[in-house]
Amino acid sequence: MKIGNKHYRSIWVNPSNPLEIQIIDQRYLPHEFIIRDLKHPDDFVHAIKDMLVRGAPLIGITAAYGLYSALLHSPAHDADANLQKAYDKLLATRPTGNNLRWALSRQLHAINEGKNLGEKIKIALENANRLADEDVKICRQIGKHGLPLIAELSKKKNGAPVNILTHCNAGWLATVDYGTATAPIYLAHDAGISVHVWVDETRPRNQGASLTAFELGKHGVPHTVVVDNAGGHLMQRGRVDMCIVGTDRTLASGDVCNKIGTYLKALAAFDNKIPFYVALPSSSIDWETKDASQIPIEERSESEVKHVQGFDGKKIVSVLVTPSHSKVSNFGFDITPARLITGLITERGICKPDRKELSLMFYE
Amino acid sequence: MKIGNKHYRSIWVNPSNPLEIQIIDQRYLPHEFIIRDLKHPDDFVHAIKDMLVRGAPLIGITAAYGLYSALLHSPAHDADANLQKAYDKLLATRPTGNNLRWALSRQLHAINEGKNLGEKIKIALENANRLADEDVKICRQIGKHGLPLIAELSKKKNGAPVNILTHCNAGWLATVDYGTATAPIYLAHDAGISVHVWVDETRPRNQGASLTAFELGKHGVPHTVVVDNAGGHLMQRGRVDMCIVGTDRTLASGDVCNKIGTYLKALAAFDNKIPFYVALPSSSIDWETKDASQIPIEERSESEVKHVQGFDGKKIVSVLVTPSHSKVSNFGFDITPARLITGLITERGICKPDRKELSLMFYE
Repeated sequence: MKIGNKHYRSIWVNPSNPLEIQIIDQRYLPHEFIIRDLKHPDDFVHAIKDMLVRGAPLIGITAAYGLYSALLHSPAHDADANLQKAYDKLLATRPTGNNLRWALSRQLHAINEGKNLGEKIKIALENANRLADEDVKICRQIGKHGLPLIAELSKKKNGAPVNILTHCNAGWLATVDYGTATAPIYLAHDAGISVHVWVDETRPRNQGASLTAFELGKHGVPHTVVVDNAGGHLMQRGRVDMCIVGTDRTLASGDVCNKIGTYLKALAAFDNKIPFYVALPSSSIDWETKDASQIPIEERSESEVKHVQGFDGKKIVSVLVTPSHSKVSNFGFDITPARLITGLITERGICKPDRKELSLMFYE
Repeated sequence: MKIGNKHYRSIWVNPSNPLEIQIIDQRYLPHEFIIRDLKHPDDFVHAIKDMLVRGAPLIGITAAYGLYSALLHSPAHDADANLQKAYDKLLATRPTGNNLRWALSRQLHAINEGKNLGEKIKIALENANRLADEDVKICRQIGKHGLPLIAELSKKKNGAPVNILTHCNAGWLATVDYGTATAPIYLAHDAGISVHVWVDETRPRNQGASLTAFELGKHGVPHTVVVDNAGGHLMQRGRVDMCIVGTDRTLASGDVCNKIGTYLKALAAFDNKIPFYVALPSSSIDWETKDASQIPIEERSESEVKHVQGFDGKKIVSVLVTPSHSKVSNFGFDITPARLITGLITERGICKPDRKELSLMFYE
C-alpha cells in the first residue's frame, strides 16, 4: 500500500543486491521509518523473534527467505544439514502462528527438488518470491470477498461512514501487501465507500496504535485510535457496524487464535449483535489440531508489559509503567470460539466458522 | 493501609495546620510519592479535575473538604454565594461518578445548619472529617461482607491461592482507606488467607499498573500486572477464581457504571462461569436515573490515549504512542448490565443487582 505517493511492500529482494532481503523495521513505527537489510540467516531469525517483522503471513514469508539465505551461506557439502538447522531455528522463533510452519515446509519441499546447491538456491529465491506474490494475491482476494459486506452496510446507512473495529495489526504490514483484516477496508476506501476504522491500541506492543494507525493514516483511511478497553462501550452505544480481525491460527473447527484481547471484542460484538468477521489466508488454517486448548500460547518477555515505548519529542524511549518489583505476565494470544464468529473471509470466499463449511471450501 | 511500616489514608487534615488538607498526588505513583497541600478552594477543583485524586468515594470526600476551604476563603457577607459557586465548580469537575453529588449535597445540607460563617466553617470541617471516617468504616464493612466469598473459595481450593481479577483502582487510594474492591482482599490477606490478584493495567491512565499494583505491593499482597487484553484468556484457562471491581455509579436496576473496560471483563467472566462482584458504598447508588444510557459518560483529553506516562530511569516523562496526526477517542467509563453481575458487595451485605434486593437492603 502507499506511504505518501510511494507504493511499498513489507518485504522485498534488494533491487541492487539479490543476495539480500529488505524489510521495514516495524519496531520503530510510527515514529521512525527504517529499512533493514537481512544479509545473514541469523538476521532472519532475529527479525522474526524480535519482531522487526510480525504478523503471521509476513512471518511465514520472511522465514521462506531465511531458508534462501541459509543456502547462500552454506558450503555445498553441508547444505542439507545447514538448511535443516535454519529450518529448526526459524520454526522455533514464534510458536503460535500457523503460517510459519506452512511457509517453511512449502519452501523446504520446493528446495528439495533441486539437484545441487546452485539449483536449490535458485529455487529457494524463486519460490520465496512466488510465496510473497501469492500472499499479495490472496490478500487481494480476501479484500474482494470482504468488500460486499462493507458495501452492503454502506448502502443500509445511506452512504454514512461504515464504522469498522479492528484489533492489533492485520494490515499490510502483517502480510506482504493489503493485509488480511484491512484488505476489504482498503478496497472499500479505494472504491469510494466511506469507511471509518476504530483502531484498538493493542497492548502490550501497541501494534494497533503504532502500525494499523500508521498504515491507515498513510493510505488516507479515516480512523480513530482507542484503548483496548473502549470497544465494548462503542458497541453498546451503536458506534460499531462490524468487526474484522486477523488470525495467527484458525482450527478446522472454526476456533480462532489471534492477538490477546480478540476474544473480549468478539464477546462484546456477540452481546451487541454486531457482525464479527475473521479474515485469513488458508495458510493460517491448522487442519490437524483438534482442540484449541492444545495451541501453544506464546508467553513473551515481562518488559513488554512493564515498559511502553514511545517518542519523547526527541527520540524513541522506553518508560516503566508498573512498580519495578511487581510481577507481570504476558500471554500473546487468546482463543475466540467459533460460536462468537459471524464468518471467515478467505481468499476463496466467506464461510461459516465450522469444519463442514471450511472443508467444502478447501476440499484439497 | 500501609506504605512500608507507616499507615496512610489518601486524604487528611494537615496536623500542623487545620486550614489545609493534604493528599497523596496520585499522578506520579508508583514512581514518586508526593504529598500535596490543598490550601485554596481552586486547589480542590484542580485536584479532582486533573486527577491528583480519583476514585468515586475519594472524589466525594475531597469535594466535601473543598466546600470547607471555600468557606475559609470567603468574606462573611458573601459566604452563601461563594459556597454555591464552589459547589457548582466542584460538581462540574467529573460528571460520571455518583459519590461527588452525594457528598457535596450532604456537606451543603450540614453547612446550612450553621447560623453564621464561623459556625458553618466548624460544621464543614467536622462533617468532612465525619464523611471521611464513615468512608473508612463503610469500606471495612464491605471488606467484612466480601471476605467469606474469598474464604469459601480458599477452602474449596484447599488453601491454594485464590486468584482475583480486578480492573482499574478501586483500592484504598480510590477511597479514604481499605478501598472497595480491595477491602475483602486486604482483609483476607491480613487474615492469612492466600490470595493472588490479577491487576488489569487499565489504559489509558494505567490506574491498575500504577496504583493498584503499588498499593498491593506496599501492603505485601501477591499480585501480577496484566494488560487489559489478557483477562479473557486467563479466565478461559481457569486462572481466575473470581472478579471484584468498584463502581462510579450503580443504578437501582443493578446496572453498573465503572472504568471503561469493566464490561468486557464481565462478559468474559459470565462466559466462563466465574463469579463477578461489584463492591460499592451505598453512596455510589443512583436511585433516580432509570436507564443506564442516560448516565453521562465522561470524555477526557486525547493526550491520555496518545501519550503514556512512565519512568525513563531518571525522571517521569510522557511518550507519544500513536502517529501524531491520528485521531483518538477517550471515553472514561462503560456500563456493565446487571445480568452479568453475580452480586453487589455493600456495607450492609451482599445482594443481587436488582431494584428489589437493593431497595430491601437500603429501605430508607
